[in-house]
Amino acid sequence: MSRGVGRDHETVRGAIAAAACVLVAEEGAGALTVRRVAAAAGVSPGRVQHYFPDRTALMLAAFDSVQHAVAAEVATAVGEAAAPEQVLTAVLRAMIPTDDTAMRRLRVVAQFESLALTEDILATRIREGHAELLAFLERLLESSRIRLDSNNTEGTLQGLLATAEGLSGQVLLGQSSPDRALALLQTSIDDMFRGVAS
Amino acid sequence: MSRGVGRDHETVRGAIAAAACVLVAEEGAGALTVRRVAAAAGVSPGRVQHYFPDRTALMLAAFDSVQHAVAAEVATAVGEAAAPEQVLTAVLRAMIPTDDTAMRRLRVVAQFESLALTEDILATRIREGHAELLAFLERLLESSRIRLDSNNTEGTLQGLLATAEGLSGQVLLGQSSPDRALALLQTSIDDMFRGVAS
Repeated sequence: MSRGVGRDHETVRGAIAAAACVLVAEEGAGALTVRRVAAAAGVSPGRVQHYFPDRTALMLAAFDSVQHAVAAEVATAVGEAAAPEQVLTAVLRAMIPTDDTAMRRLRVVAQFESLALTEDILATRIREGHAELLAFLERLLESSRIRLDSNNTEGTLQGLLATAEGLSGQVLLGQSSPDRALALLQTSIDDMFRGVAS
Repeated sequence: MSRGVGRDHETVRGAIAAAACVLVAEEGAGALTVRRVAAAAGVSPGRVQHYFPDRTALMLAAFDSVQHAVAAEVATAVGEAAAPEQVLTAVLRAMIPTDDTAMRRLRVVAQFESLALTEDILATRIREGHAELLAFLERLLESSRIRLDSNNTEGTLQGLLATAEGLSGQVLLGQSSPDRALALLQTSIDDMFRGVAS
């Protein structure tokens, strides 16, 4: 396979996965079928199956594509942040959607999380991602001079992640404005660092 | 209509709504159609439509039925709790699933929350429920002698609800054990009451 064809393959594959994400955002995870994604992507079901042998492969590719977009967004948000506490804050703040693009993206993530309640393979993927994020944040604090006074860094970080996840859900469901969620998140972050020896 | 017929009507209506909840728990919110709920309830689609004129009516009835079950569960958990801080703690702890029944119930709630991302009428219902819960907890603290030192009771409670919601999601997705989530929730509750003049 020449590089040109290889690139084309990746392009079409990516376009189908992207169409699947748009479909999930607009109609929910239940719409994630080969037939409906094909229609949304403007290709035949056979062409979708050429790239994704079954619905599970399609689902995982679509999930990976939105996860990738979220990771890129977090990387941008972290940007030039140098101090570990700035990185931690940037990562957590990126979980709160503050514009239409992030709202759409995190709505897709939320749909995949609900899909994971009935699809074990997706649940495993999401659990792994969560564990990796938690381990990254732990290493971040451990590599710094920050020592939490709770003696339970992992638990504290897990609780903070839960708060960010809950606030993100509140914004997605229209229970909280993004600004309010960000302010409440910042209070939780400040509480964590309060009384910390750095 | 005699009382007997009226009771029967409610029984059948309730059984259909319950079947819809089981279906949503097992197959996701996308399965919530008149045809599929009819099959799950063992009745004809026409009979479902006799009780619920359209899918939206069916969806709202199913949501109400699981919300009702959750409220009953919370009421039981609150039980004889007298002090406002005990009631608050019981309400928040009831949001973390600790047995199979609660797991199934909160999985249904999570599916309806994902459905609310594409169904405005359901989003409104969920927002109202959230606002009511928040207002209840606020009144609870205000009626007590507890004064939070943050000067922002509503914000503090909203953050605490977000933490409980996030931890609940972690348990549903298998990212955290129920015990661990309860312990982290308790830490957040204790932090809130720390330094409080009661």
